[in-house]
Amino acid sequence: MDAAEFRKRGKEMVDYIADYLEKIDKRQVFPDVEPGYLRPLIPDCAPQNPESFEDVFKDIEKIIMPGAASPACTELETVMLDWLGKMINLPEEFLAGNSGQGGGVIQGSASEATLMSLLAARTKAVRQVQSEKPELTEADIMGRLVAYASDQAHSSVERAALIGGVKIKNISSDDTFRLCGSALKKVLDEDKASGLIPFFFCATLGTTSCCSFDKLLELGPICNKENIWMHVDAAYAGSAFICPEFRHLLNGVEFADSFNFNPHKWLLVNFDCSAMWVKKRSDLTGAFKLEPLYLQHHHQESGLITDYRHWQIPLGRRFRSLKLWFVLRMYGVKGLQEHIRKHVRLSHLFEHLVLQDERFEICAEVILGLVCFRLKGSNELNEALLKIINEAKKIHLVPCHLQDKFVLRFAVCSRTVESTHIKFAWQHISQLATDLLKTWEQKHQQQ
Amino acid sequence: MDAAEFRKRGKEMVDYIADYLEKIDKRQVFPDVEPGYLRPLIPDCAPQNPESFEDVFKDIEKIIMPGAASPACTELETVMLDWLGKMINLPEEFLAGNSGQGGGVIQGSASEATLMSLLAARTKAVRQVQSEKPELTEADIMGRLVAYASDQAHSSVERAALIGGVKIKNISSDDTFRLCGSALKKVLDEDKASGLIPFFFCATLGTTSCCSFDKLLELGPICNKENIWMHVDAAYAGSAFICPEFRHLLNGVEFADSFNFNPHKWLLVNFDCSAMWVKKRSDLTGAFKLEPLYLQHHHQESGLITDYRHWQIPLGRRFRSLKLWFVLRMYGVKGLQEHIRKHVRLSHLFEHLVLQDERFEICAEVILGLVCFRLKGSNELNEALLKIINEAKKIHLVPCHLQDKFVLRFAVCSRTVESTHIKFAWQHISQLATDLLKTWEQKHQQQ
Repeated sequence: MDAAEFRKRGKEMVDYIADYLEKIDKRQVFPDVEPGYLRPLIPDCAPQNPESFEDVFKDIEKIIMPGAASPACTELETVMLDWLGKMINLPEEFLAGNSGQGGGVIQGSASEATLMSLLAARTKAVRQVQSEKPELTEADIMGRLVAYASDQAHSSVERAALIGGVKIKNISSDDTFRLCGSALKKVLDEDKASGLIPFFFCATLGTTSCCSFDKLLELGPICNKENIWMHVDAAYAGSAFICPEFRHLLNGVEFADSFNFNPHKWLLVNFDCSAMWVKKRSDLTGAFKLEPLYLQHHHQESGLITDYRHWQIPLGRRFRSLKLWFVLRMYGVKGLQEHIRKHVRLSHLFEHLVLQDERFEICAEVILGLVCFRLKGSNELNEALLKIINEAKKIHLVPCHLQDKFVLRFAVCSRTVESTHIKFAWQHISQLATDLLKTWEQKHQQQ
Repeated sequence: MDAAEFRKRGKEMVDYIADYLEKIDKRQVFPDVEPGYLRPLIPDCAPQNPESFEDVFKDIEKIIMPGAASPACTELETVMLDWLGKMINLPEEFLAGNSGQGGGVIQGSASEATLMSLLAARTKAVRQVQSEKPELTEADIMGRLVAYASDQAHSSVERAALIGGVKIKNISSDDTFRLCGSALKKVLDEDKASGLIPFFFCATLGTTSCCSFDKLLELGPICNKENIWMHVDAAYAGSAFICPEFRHLLNGVEFADSFNFNPHKWLLVNFDCSAMWVKKRSDLTGAFKLEPLYLQHHHQESGLITDYRHWQIPLGRRFRSLKLWFVLRMYGVKGLQEHIRKHVRLSHLFEHLVLQDERFEICAEVILGLVCFRLKGSNELNEALLKIINEAKKIHLVPCHLQDKFVLRFAVCSRTVESTHIKFAWQHISQLATDLLKTWEQKHQQQ
């Protein structure tokens, strides 16, 4: 949608809301629909080709308004997460369908998805150990539980463990920043030998620092064998799996208990929209289910409806699946694939420009939209380069450390980015590097 | 703002966004402002009288856009929470000001505020016990920590304790559904004698079931003396404290460590916007502070800026203070006070109508916008009444239990409610009760 259409459609939407408010007292306070009303009204999967705004918008009055905020909010979310799951070819066990044990939910952020999966895993582990060793108290067990992640995992994984009150260990990744099975296995064996209870492992697909991928196909079977909950965090990279040529990066997810990626990062959905799936939703909902009378309803024991409040930290929730519905239909799967492919093409263009300049080096394999690069030379030199780049305020880069090297991260992420922007950014960086190296050499000659 | 003005202003806003998107490449990628730039640009407190939309809107380009999303998002939030804190006459220790140790944050829901305060209290307690008794492991201490709340507290308090991996006890409230100091004291003494470590108490102002108020002035000094973190949950009732005649209900908050209420419940701000304050923000930020390189910035050790990611569960956040800014200015304090007072007037009107009908009884003191009532008679009778009311779909009521009695809850909450709606609702309920009692008596005569 270009700006001209946005003006037109945005104003129609304003009128729709005003009309709604003016006539609100003509509407029923409670919908007539029965649980499950929505799924049969919409297709089984996202359209391949874009639909018009008009077509999507017409469905608001037809499909959403009869179900009001509730249950439409819940039911659209369940179906949208099925759509999205199918787009990335997620194993069917993760989908809700009509009678599945799995399903998806929209969380606010990957941090919440990680925390919810860790908490569910903790409850499951405590119950299981208690049933085997009834002499242990919950505190005894909690004190022996250990979670794991790679040393490249996002800081929110460590934070989830701190919140959950359990130990966490960061396991060294290999020289391509990927965690392999043998490294996990070694730590598990040591920890079990010393009386600890491994219960949770968070694998990362597309690490924050350099977009590396943990080796799910090695790690998954180990977790399954050892009865460890495996959560897969693909916050950024997950969107790419809608393209068949990148789907292999998700291989091994079939071993996972839960999986998460953020459409708000790379699938043109506004923040916040973090998609999370579990194979057994009873693991999640069973962890902290509380049913005071003021939250009870006559469908809750029927198994027909989903109470998302058991799937998340907050009680209340917004109608976030609407934006997913609009984006998936207005771009179509093909439009979204083109968006991903363009970003990956452009990051390779940037990589190519870096490689042509022998003052620079690429620091990690470029797989998706992130290029890790640096000037050959000291960390101080690269810190100085980052500083002048960010102070010029033409582009903005965020750094990381890779094996003690200070590295610059070039992330392609704007909806409207074109190759001219990439070339501009590179010329700009290259020029600043030239200026910097001149003064740097002078300074070092003086010393 | 009526629907006509909403149409006009909404369309102006659509154009503003489209203009922004069309000219985005003319803007800098990073703002020029320094930490603390925003506070001097806006008044110290919310206006008493409404301002025009035009005046508020002009400030977007003038005050927000130069600070872009960051730091404007953070700085406006800190100042808005100070505005809101002053509106309810919160003790100055809770405000951030220019150099305070306290401050406010917008959470998504009261559940998150309760959880964050419980987690901060847990970290503080563990560290303190460890420093006194280094022979205890963290697991030993966790196993002995106990949190407390009244038996009328919201289920999210129990859930927070389950998430935090600590025990929680619900203490019996008195016959007006208020928790008093002696009841808390008794349980604390018993628990300490048996080796447990009381660390957290959640008081409720305006309980979900019947809008009762725990006795803060009794409970607060006990918590302070016993070194127990007191969190005050006023999710619904808190908005009323902007009216001087209701502010006494908040007396005792000076003993609390953290306080929360939801402007999205009763202050005309859209969901989600849950306002939380702490006296010592270091308690909150110190609980789980993690600083990976990709989240570091050169201001973080200066003490000049607030990193709200340490105040909450998720890492990312939305620009929710904007809606608070707009609402507080467009209504003014007086407009919002009038909104609260009207609802309280209307709930007393409903109470009056109930009391005039001797078939009914009022089940709890009507203080704010909630009326708890029932037919004199069995729980079954009242369950049947609720069923026919909700099936008629003219109004919608949610029940509760008060001392084993099944009670109907009439909540005044719509922005546009008038006395005609209240009278309509009562006539409707009264008529349905008449119909019900007729068949109910016939049924009972037949038995």
